[in-house]
Formats: sequence, C-alpha cells, structure tokens
Amino acid sequence: MGTEIKTGRRMTRIVKKPDERREEIIKAARELFHTKDYDKTTMQDIMDALNIAKGTIYHYFSSKQELLEAVVEDMVDEEYRKKEALMKSGRVKGLPAMEKLRVLITESGTGPETERILDTLHHPENYEMHTKQLGRYITKLAPLWAAVFAEGREQGVFRVEHPLECAEFILAGAQFMIDVGFYPWSESQINRRLRALPRLLESQLGVPAGTFDFINEKQEGKK
Amino acid sequence: MGTEIKTGRRMTRIVKKPDERREEIIKAARELFHTKDYDKTTMQDIMDALNIAKGTIYHYFSSKQELLEAVVEDMVDEEYRKKEALMKSGRVKGLPAMEKLRVLITESGTGPETERILDTLHHPENYEMHTKQLGRYITKLAPLWAAVFAEGREQGVFRVEHPLECAEFILAGAQFMIDVGFYPWSESQINRRLRALPRLLESQLGVPAGTFDFINEKQEGKK
Repeated sequence: MGTEIKTGRRMTRIVKKPDERREEIIKAARELFHTKDYDKTTMQDIMDALNIAKGTIYHYFSSKQELLEAVVEDMVDEEYRKKEALMKSGRVKGLPAMEKLRVLITESGTGPETERILDTLHHPENYEMHTKQLGRYITKLAPLWAAVFAEGREQGVFRVEHPLECAEFILAGAQFMIDVGFYPWSESQINRRLRALPRLLESQLGVPAGTFDFINEKQEGKK
Repeated sequence: MGTEIKTGRRMTRIVKKPDERREEIIKAARELFHTKDYDKTTMQDIMDALNIAKGTIYHYFSSKQELLEAVVEDMVDEEYRKKEALMKSGRVKGLPAMEKLRVLITESGTGPETERILDTLHHPENYEMHTKQLGRYITKLAPLWAAVFAEGREQGVFRVEHPLECAEFILAGAQFMIDVGFYPWSESQINRRLRALPRLLESQLGVPAGTFDFINEKQEGKK
C-alpha cells in the first residue's frame, strides 16, 4: 500500500518482509493484551513497544479490534501446532488411539497466559470474534481429532463412520454448551452438561460407558 | 417510567396493559421486518403502523436492534408453542417415539415468512443476536426433544442416558456446523456435514444406520 516510511533510523526495519513485520506486531500485541489487558492497551503502546510508526501498524491492522482478531487467530494456530507436535512426539505416537484421545483432551496446547485474552472474547461486543474463533478452532483442530478417531476405528475401538464430521460435531456442540462466552448459561446448566458429556461422547464414538469419565475428573481437579 | 401520554386521542390506548402493548409493537415490527425488510424499516414506520407516539415505543424498546431481538425471541417462542401443540395433537400424540422425532425434525413450526427476518441475523453486526437466538432456541426447544428421547428410551428404541443434554448437544452441534450465519462455511463443508449428520445422530441415539436418512431427503427436496 506504499505507506512505508523511508527515512531515518527506521530504515533498518524496512528490510523486514511484510509477513515477518505482521507477526512481530501480533506477538507484541499478544504480550500487551496479556500483561496489561486488552482494554488498557492502546495502539500507541504497541507502537512504542516495537518502536514503529503509526503508518506501519495501521498498514497491517486498521483497529485494535482487528489486531485482537489476529491475536486470537495466532493463539488457535499455536494450539494447533503444539497439539500436532504432541501427536507426533515419541511419547504419544505409538499409543493406542484411546490414549491419544485422552492426551488430546487433557493436555492443553496453550498456557495460562492465553486465558486473560480469551476472557476478552466474553465481552458482548466481541461475540462476533468469539464465534469466528470457534469456527477457526473447529477448522484447524478437528482434523487432528479425526485422525485419532480413524486410527481408533482401524484398531476396532471406535465406531465412527465420518471421523472429521464427528470431530467437528463434538467440538462445536461441546463448546457451545459449556462456554459462557457464547451464551450466559447458568452454573447449574454448565454443571449438568459437564456431568452428561462423557456419556454423550461415549455414545458418539461407540465406546463403553465410563471410558470418558476422566473428563470430569480433570474438570474437578481444576476447581 | 412515566412516559405515557395522558392527553388527546391516545387516551383510549393508554388503558392497554404494558404486556399487551409490548406484544403489539413486536407483532407490528415483525410484520414490517418481513414485508419491508429490517434494514428498510424505521422506528417511525412502526409508530405509524400502530398510531403510537415516540415516547410509547421507546418506553419499551430503546432501539430498532432491541426490537429485532424481541422479534427473534417472539419467533423462537412461537416455534416452541407450535411444536409443543403438534406433539400433543391427536395425530402425533400416540405415535412411537421415532415417528414423533421425525415430525419434530421435518415439520417446521415456523412459516416461510420468518426466513427473511432470520436472514437479517446473518449480517455480521448481528452475530451477537444470532448467538443469543441459538442459546434461546436450545433452552426452549431442547426439552421437547428430550421428552421424545426419554419416551424412546422407555420404548427400548433409543439408547440415551441424559435426554436433555443429548438434545442440547445435537441442537447446538448441528446448528453451528450447518448454519452459515454463525460462520462462513463453504458449500462443500456444509454438504459433507449434511451427508454425515444422519450417522452422527444414529450413533448418538444408538439406533441402526439408515434410521435418519430422511433428513437428507428433506434437505434435497428443499433445493
């Protein structure tokens, strides 16, 4: 778009590839949204942190909201990469499908530092972004689950005819039912759904009752 | 709030109970949102249609968006009442649970006149409302589905331990996966999910493969 600044000390930065620059802005924003909170962070804070000009940041992101969207995408992408690496790791690779699925469910790909940013999505003005995030999450993560479902089918432990759609259905349904960011569900609604979730997954995958009880053990452990 | 107008020809209207007045405004708005389109309807149009003053309409609804929200709630409530009546009707009441479920899925409680209004929810600025609508839909409609699931369990045809949560899971999951209003899914994503949906429901309810094939027959019939 030709908004690059061609004079002074910023010359050294201009050589950066656009993708690299964009990523640098996202990382700085993510850091600030976490340490300072999204609401308290300004575009100026991000410019200061990177020592870049207004024209540079607005070349990539027209608003703080757009930057939040990119940060959230970045978080989903990171979770995907981490979980993909986990599935390919020596520790997990050779496990039976059911054990792989347990790892996928219980071992989060993101750290606690993402939670403050995700909380931002629970603000009513960010519903749109939250919905987009779930859509992106399903699109990126469901294939990882689907691969484990297909493996389990070959091993004779899961009964699942459409692994990918099954994964999408589980991710979408479970998330919508238990995330108060999408809808102001009451605590009792969330609790009774969490209690039912293992049975719902067991039916979906055709495994014996009790197989997914570890989900609630994990939830209770969290409190 | 004391904004009623106490003089002139509107005196006759003041005797209306607040609930009645509110409903009257919702009905008029719903009619106009359908015939004229939401975007083209103004608050003034609604005031003109009902011959009410600005103070009266704004006493109940602070904006056209708030009125749209009430219209959408009204549509969900109407669908609930119609489907509840259908389930209790002489034609359906005595049917086996599986037949009742088929009626619940294939016979819509709303007419084609609601579709134009629902299309409004697919505008990006109405994501929040769309999400709320799905939440409300689940809260209102899932108990009807759950009653049929529980009946089918007693009849030995459905395997379902948590009928209500199972209904919520199905409604949330299926809706999120196949509604482009929530996420801009591609046509091929929607199509492959529609093809998988019967098997997903069959697994969830523990019924033989093929039981829910009528869902896609209905979809194809629609095109």
